[in-house]
Amino acid sequence: MFDVIVKNCRVVSSQGIIEADILVKDGRIAAISEEPLEAEAARTIDAAGRFVMPGVVDEHVHIIDMDLKEVYGRFELDSESAAVGGVTTIIEMPITFPPTTTLEAFLEKKKQGEQRLKVDFALYGGGVPGNLSEIRKMHDAGAVGFKSMMAASVPGMFDAVDDGQLFEIFQEIAACGSVIVVHAENEMLIQTLQKQLKAAGRKDLAAYEASQPVFQENEAIQRALLLQKEAGCRLIVVHVSNPGGVELIHKAQSEGQDVHCESGPQYLNLTMDDAEKVGPYMKIAPPVRSAELNAVLWEQLEKGYIDTLGSDHGGHPVENKEGGWDDIWTASNGALGLETSLPMMLTNGVNKGRVSLERLVEVMCENPAKLFGIYPQKGTLQVGSDADLLILDLEIEDRKVDASQFRSLLHYSPFDGRPVTGAPVLTMIRGTVVAQDGEILVDQGFGQFVTRRDSEVSS
Amino acid sequence: MFDVIVKNCRVVSSQGIIEADILVKDGRIAAISEEPLEAEAARTIDAAGRFVMPGVVDEHVHIIDMDLKEVYGRFELDSESAAVGGVTTIIEMPITFPPTTTLEAFLEKKKQGEQRLKVDFALYGGGVPGNLSEIRKMHDAGAVGFKSMMAASVPGMFDAVDDGQLFEIFQEIAACGSVIVVHAENEMLIQTLQKQLKAAGRKDLAAYEASQPVFQENEAIQRALLLQKEAGCRLIVVHVSNPGGVELIHKAQSEGQDVHCESGPQYLNLTMDDAEKVGPYMKIAPPVRSAELNAVLWEQLEKGYIDTLGSDHGGHPVENKEGGWDDIWTASNGALGLETSLPMMLTNGVNKGRVSLERLVEVMCENPAKLFGIYPQKGTLQVGSDADLLILDLEIEDRKVDASQFRSLLHYSPFDGRPVTGAPVLTMIRGTVVAQDGEILVDQGFGQFVTRRDSEVSS
Amino acid sequence: MFDVIVKNCRVVSSQGIIEADILVKDGRIAAISEEPLEAEAARTIDAAGRFVMPGVVDEHVHIIDMDLKEVYGRFELDSESAAVGGVTTIIEMPITFPPTTTLEAFLEKKKQGEQRLKVDFALYGGGVPGNLSEIRKMHDAGAVGFKSMMAASVPGMFDAVDDGQLFEIFQEIAACGSVIVVHAENEMLIQTLQKQLKAAGRKDLAAYEASQPVFQENEAIQRALLLQKEAGCRLIVVHVSNPGGVELIHKAQSEGQDVHCESGPQYLNLTMDDAEKVGPYMKIAPPVRSAELNAVLWEQLEKGYIDTLGSDHGGHPVENKEGGWDDIWTASNGALGLETSLPMMLTNGVNKGRVSLERLVEVMCENPAKLFGIYPQKGTLQVGSDADLLILDLEIEDRKVDASQFRSLLHYSPFDGRPVTGAPVLTMIRGTVVAQDGEILVDQGFGQFVTRRDSEVSS
Amino acid sequence: MFDVIVKNCRVVSSQGIIEADILVKDGRIAAISEEPLEAEAARTIDAAGRFVMPGVVDEHVHIIDMDLKEVYGRFELDSESAAVGGVTTIIEMPITFPPTTTLEAFLEKKKQGEQRLKVDFALYGGGVPGNLSEIRKMHDAGAVGFKSMMAASVPGMFDAVDDGQLFEIFQEIAACGSVIVVHAENEMLIQTLQKQLKAAGRKDLAAYEASQPVFQENEAIQRALLLQKEAGCRLIVVHVSNPGGVELIHKAQSEGQDVHCESGPQYLNLTMDDAEKVGPYMKIAPPVRSAELNAVLWEQLEKGYIDTLGSDHGGHPVENKEGGWDDIWTASNGALGLETSLPMMLTNGVNKGRVSLERLVEVMCENPAKLFGIYPQKGTLQVGSDADLLILDLEIEDRKVDASQFRSLLHYSPFDGRPVTGAPVLTMIRGTVVAQDGEILVDQGFGQFVTRRDSEVSS
Repeated sequence: MFDVIVKNCRVVSSQGIIEADILVKDGRIAAISEEPLEAEAARTIDAAGRFVMPGVVDEHVHIIDMDLKEVYGRFELDSESAAVGGVTTIIEMPITFPPTTTLEAFLEKKKQGEQRLKVDFALYGGGVPGNLSEIRKMHDAGAVGFKSMMAASVPGMFDAVDDGQLFEIFQEIAACGSVIVVHAENEMLIQTLQKQLKAAGRKDLAAYEASQPVFQENEAIQRALLLQKEAGCRLIVVHVSNPGGVELIHKAQSEGQDVHCESGPQYLNLTMDDAEKVGPYMKIAPPVRSAELNAVLWEQLEKGYIDTLGSDHGGHPVENKEGGWDDIWTASNGALGLETSLPMMLTNGVNKGRVSLERLVEVMCENPAKLFGIYPQKGTLQVGSDADLLILDLEIEDRKVDASQFRSLLHYSPFDGRPVTGAPVLTMIRGTVVAQDGEILVDQGFGQFVTRRDSEVSS
Repeated sequence: MFDVIVKNCRVVSSQGIIEADILVKDGRIAAISEEPLEAEAARTIDAAGRFVMPGVVDEHVHIIDMDLKEVYGRFELDSESAAVGGVTTIIEMPITFPPTTTLEAFLEKKKQGEQRLKVDFALYGGGVPGNLSEIRKMHDAGAVGFKSMMAASVPGMFDAVDDGQLFEIFQEIAACGSVIVVHAENEMLIQTLQKQLKAAGRKDLAAYEASQPVFQENEAIQRALLLQKEAGCRLIVVHVSNPGGVELIHKAQSEGQDVHCESGPQYLNLTMDDAEKVGPYMKIAPPVRSAELNAVLWEQLEKGYIDTLGSDHGGHPVENKEGGWDDIWTASNGALGLETSLPMMLTNGVNKGRVSLERLVEVMCENPAKLFGIYPQKGTLQVGSDADLLILDLEIEDRKVDASQFRSLLHYSPFDGRPVTGAPVLTMIRGTVVAQDGEILVDQGFGQFVTRRDSEVSS
Repeated sequence: MFDVIVKNCRVVSSQGIIEADILVKDGRIAAISEEPLEAEAARTIDAAGRFVMPGVVDEHVHIIDMDLKEVYGRFELDSESAAVGGVTTIIEMPITFPPTTTLEAFLEKKKQGEQRLKVDFALYGGGVPGNLSEIRKMHDAGAVGFKSMMAASVPGMFDAVDDGQLFEIFQEIAACGSVIVVHAENEMLIQTLQKQLKAAGRKDLAAYEASQPVFQENEAIQRALLLQKEAGCRLIVVHVSNPGGVELIHKAQSEGQDVHCESGPQYLNLTMDDAEKVGPYMKIAPPVRSAELNAVLWEQLEKGYIDTLGSDHGGHPVENKEGGWDDIWTASNGALGLETSLPMMLTNGVNKGRVSLERLVEVMCENPAKLFGIYPQKGTLQVGSDADLLILDLEIEDRKVDASQFRSLLHYSPFDGRPVTGAPVLTMIRGTVVAQDGEILVDQGFGQFVTRRDSEVSS
Repeated sequence: MFDVIVKNCRVVSSQGIIEADILVKDGRIAAISEEPLEAEAARTIDAAGRFVMPGVVDEHVHIIDMDLKEVYGRFELDSESAAVGGVTTIIEMPITFPPTTTLEAFLEKKKQGEQRLKVDFALYGGGVPGNLSEIRKMHDAGAVGFKSMMAASVPGMFDAVDDGQLFEIFQEIAACGSVIVVHAENEMLIQTLQKQLKAAGRKDLAAYEASQPVFQENEAIQRALLLQKEAGCRLIVVHVSNPGGVELIHKAQSEGQDVHCESGPQYLNLTMDDAEKVGPYMKIAPPVRSAELNAVLWEQLEKGYIDTLGSDHGGHPVENKEGGWDDIWTASNGALGLETSLPMMLTNGVNKGRVSLERLVEVMCENPAKLFGIYPQKGTLQVGSDADLLILDLEIEDRKVDASQFRSLLHYSPFDGRPVTGAPVLTMIRGTVVAQDGEILVDQGFGQFVTRRDSEVSS
């Protein structure tokens, strides 16, 4: 009668934890029961009283595949990282070669994803100078949201927008009823400060942080919030690195604006105190901040000021990183995250009492799914939802992050060597176990395209 | 195997709506399934696709029974109102004869409730001048919270506290880890304004409203918020009547204070425009406000600024009300609410598109249960929760509120004659149908005492 | 042609400093000139390039004379302190025996002041329970403002008002177009905290401070601000002791409320670090605060958040103070200030670079005169103003405060023994030198009654 | 002994009004006296009891002279407008041909001003892309402040700065201890909105206003305020056109930032209700706003939220304006103001009770002089100040603005035909009457260069 029964779960949601069995049929959760139902099932998995949470919806992923040289991410490999790391749905960013800024590129990316990914995925379209008329087309084709950059662009491929362009994109997003995520930094301030620091002979990671300081990030955030207020679209400011920025967004949200704050495991689990050891491998944009600011971020996470966490997963060839030890300006920005985000949050957050498991499920599963319109299909363990779940082990001993074993094409991490005390041991997507104890159990193309609940595109 | 199956439900929670069957065993929800489980059950109820919500937890009820004359509420009768009105758990206020301000009175009230109530109940203790040492005793005996009055006291029986007393009560509540609810108005401002209005010859309901104006209510609210900030206890400001007060609490909560806002169906469904028709029957404290302010309250409800709704159910002999037509100052404060709260919210809120059903479940069921520590036993339909549920009819035609048919001892209502388009048609508590189509199906004493999840008192 | 010429002045105002001669005729400044006018004058005084500022208008003085026992202040003696200390106009508080809460008492106090004071004076009326109808009478008789107490009353003589009474007084003040000053503390919180501290066996000055903590002061301030907003009168919150209170008033003023902040030399020049040395002699209400808060007060003074400084001059028999060394609760509240306020501000403020002389003139002369309607007669050195001026010496060496030499009846001070580097060396009122180098040069009754510019009472 | 005596003045300052004679020697006010001094003077002028105010310091003037074609302003002629209009000191903007963005251009402009102007003048330097190293040189040469544009630049001549450039200019201004004024609008938002409006076929003045809406102006203001907070320089946001912008600056100032708000007579005396009549002649940047917003601006002026008023005087050939009747986009921005600013403020402000004369002196004379470091030489009537004064007639009958009679090269005005009830009848600079009853009484070159009090440049 059922396909799978997962027994003896401690099922976690933002609303609390219940002890029950989860019964799956046709890829969906068909029943949740605390009674041992006399039901037949093709397979029974015993969670043995472990915590079972929804699979992570990582809203901020740059696999960057397509026509790119092998040195960057590959759909097949990075989706294995996702599966092992507990990410059952990725929302892939549009910064790809070619960029996802036209309907044509969007459809090609969707096709490649369907053929090659091993976890489920949704797609962003890009909002760049000149592609305004493509936004609705990509929306209609199933994009769950859009991305624009106020700074830190990839010139010629994915350019930053000026305020006028951003405002028109916001207007179009509002008209579509979609959601826009923005990289909020101030390009010209960064260039000026970088120039001053270089002129002063600085080449260290702290100089990089000083070149993209908190005040310029917050300037861009407050500007985006003001434009959102006028245009009325749903806005997520992504990878917010500092408490002041979180506060600005929280305040606007408290006053009724449809604005939301994404931070990420990288900002929570790294501080400038790690600079000496990690060096260019923690060069990301916006920069990692001081330990003092980091401590406030953790409080804001638990208080509910941070709505979602995104890994900002994305890699560059190791040779683009290594030079940064001598001259930080030569290093590329970016870090892999799919395989470490959840383990780092479980290890340093839940197991150290800085955030509850319920809250973590809210920001890593429920909220991303809700904001991008794919809830309750994804992000929750309710009757009727996709059976995307993780069995957790929160009492791991003697394990460390080992980037050399990453499933990704690239094998470095700012967390390399850091202890891991909590991680998923089994990852299920639509009732199928896709990873267990580090082994991948599905083939390319298992992953399915996911789109908004209100979309007419079949997903 | 199961006791009851409620089939074909559209199960509502703050997280959304799912279509499923609810299976009950031993009074609890044992399973939720969208598959027709081949399970045996003593009874099967077909919800026929109707919305099914958790039973209402009404945190603000004054049945006022005990040694009082018959003319006030009676446990038996008012709990029938509750059952018919969809309230499955009442939290009874301590303003009773004798008042619930000592352990002895608390235990007596608990006993009487257990013997006579037909729905489940929890109890407040009172915080009044002089009973500080009784608070922990009542907490240990199972009180889910405490109530103090900054104004509008019942002299000699339940006196208002001054700021010093209130602060000490807050300190004690914090020490116990309990929650305090306060009636926040400014006694001396009210007396002065009342004196001025009487001197001007005013005797109308608008004069009553003017005697307890928004600014004095908000003064008391900001004072309570400041004391809470210092003492650190959990605080709910109850029956907030105006948007400015809601805003003050929302702002403090946004800034991290553990403070919460209760408003009520009476403030949402009545405005001063009803004064001519309803007269003294809408004399409550704080007063009902203008239609302009009322419109903002509805927006705040949907935006999430109001955390809970309480009925402030409580009655006085009709002769204490009637005189108010000629001289509003002679009329007692209070109105019955148990039988009308949910129907009015469904009719004027949900069915008019002013609040979603999900949000209503949040403020009438989930949030009260969470704030008073009785969640997830009460307030939600999850596996493991008490099977306290309502089957709703949201397409009622040709029905009106008829106070003459109220189950309570008293038979008047500010809503008398108002249309009803939505109401519960079946009320279940712990798997037992307690009311169906207006009929009461259980006896006195069916109701059980409910206490905090963390309490050692058996509930 | 002129009566007096004061030559070679560096004349200070909030608008800057000019070098000029001041020419006096008939008690007023008839001319200001940088040219040596060929004018005859009965007397020429050479300021020799020293700073010349307007005489201080001390808006907060409790001489407390009248039918009181000799042990308290006396008009004759305390006004000599004023003259020596650079205070040319005192505004005397209504807390006198009998209190200035009726027209009759007001007129009697005016008469006594005219007969006995040696400096000019204005009078407050009192706003107490039950004397509402006397307020306009005292206003019409020339009161420049009114005083009410929210706490720290003198029971039976000058009672605190409840919020309703305060609101009615505010309404009456608004109707008169007068100004109200309030002592903003929370009586009941103080009593409760005092009770707790006494129960804990505390008898030290720090316990006194803890019994009237910042949060209770700020609670009363925010309450007064809210009532002012509703009533619309001009309000000065007096002797604000902590930066949070200053901030609350500054914010309300920034938002357009006619509210103002008085602090005093006692809060600027004393901190809890002085407790061991000064003991009960710095017991005042509200209490002196910590050094940390004190540092912020100085910044707020220079930034313009503090509008006026008042000495809160008032004394109690020394035997009422001495017992406080052993048991602080037995000590009376109060400290003498007339003779030390300006010297302490010049010494610790101006000469240490913490406040400019221009700003000091603004808060000690111009602003009090403006707020109470006696500007430009008092508080400024303009053509047409009363010739009330001080010649300052800012380079004093080897002088200390010596309370044993005070002109007042009482001879103690929290500043006793503290160095003095700046002080007035000559005090002129209406063209007459009233004090020079510590000598008093006028007789009883020299002082004149001053009233509002818009008053019809002759002053 | 004296050069000039101005008798029977009602001398106005922000501190009040005194009745006195003003005695002038060597161009400065040597004495102020209410006594008829027996002084000899070369000339006696009888003010006959009229109000006498300091000459206006217009901090925002674009005469735009130098190598420019005759069709724009000329130093000689526009300074006659100034003299007639009561402006005794102009601070000339750097947008000139060539622009005042180098030391060389600055010195040339100073020379030309000294040779040709008939009123006193100070000069701005420009802060544009690429001239950072010139700023200190111009500061040292006597610039009283600097100007940068965030939008509305003159491409190729005076370009707008990006945020990085603006920040570096702010840093340099802070290092010099100078002051920066910014035109705060958002160039890219304007271009986008303009494009949309043009695409919609709009060509009217309301479309122009909609293309530079309040929200984009306020965006730029909040950005400038944030950069100022970081850099720490003194900032004046100029020609603020809307109350929201004023509020932002007021709030930052209240919180301790050294930021200031300039609005202007054009925003106070024009509203969009004048569009039909005045058309392109009121096309200025930022645009004139609605009557509703205008009413709030007047309140903010009186409340003290607006620090200075600048005329933004500047003209374009009439043929560049006329085309705007048919297509507003073709019209140049700008309006003449020197001859009308004070009369419009006296007529519509003082004489209609919307602003006091004392407050007008504060914002048009004292504050500009203080902010740019030329006080008390300019902007006030104190002993020692330059004898720059105006005798006012506030009871003019039957006069209207007649642009055809303007002294400027250009002869149009948005106020043409508007009634005038108040205006200066005599303008004195340094003791010399420069204009009387509309006649100019001095020659080219009478005007002197004015610099900061702390400058070592002789002025």
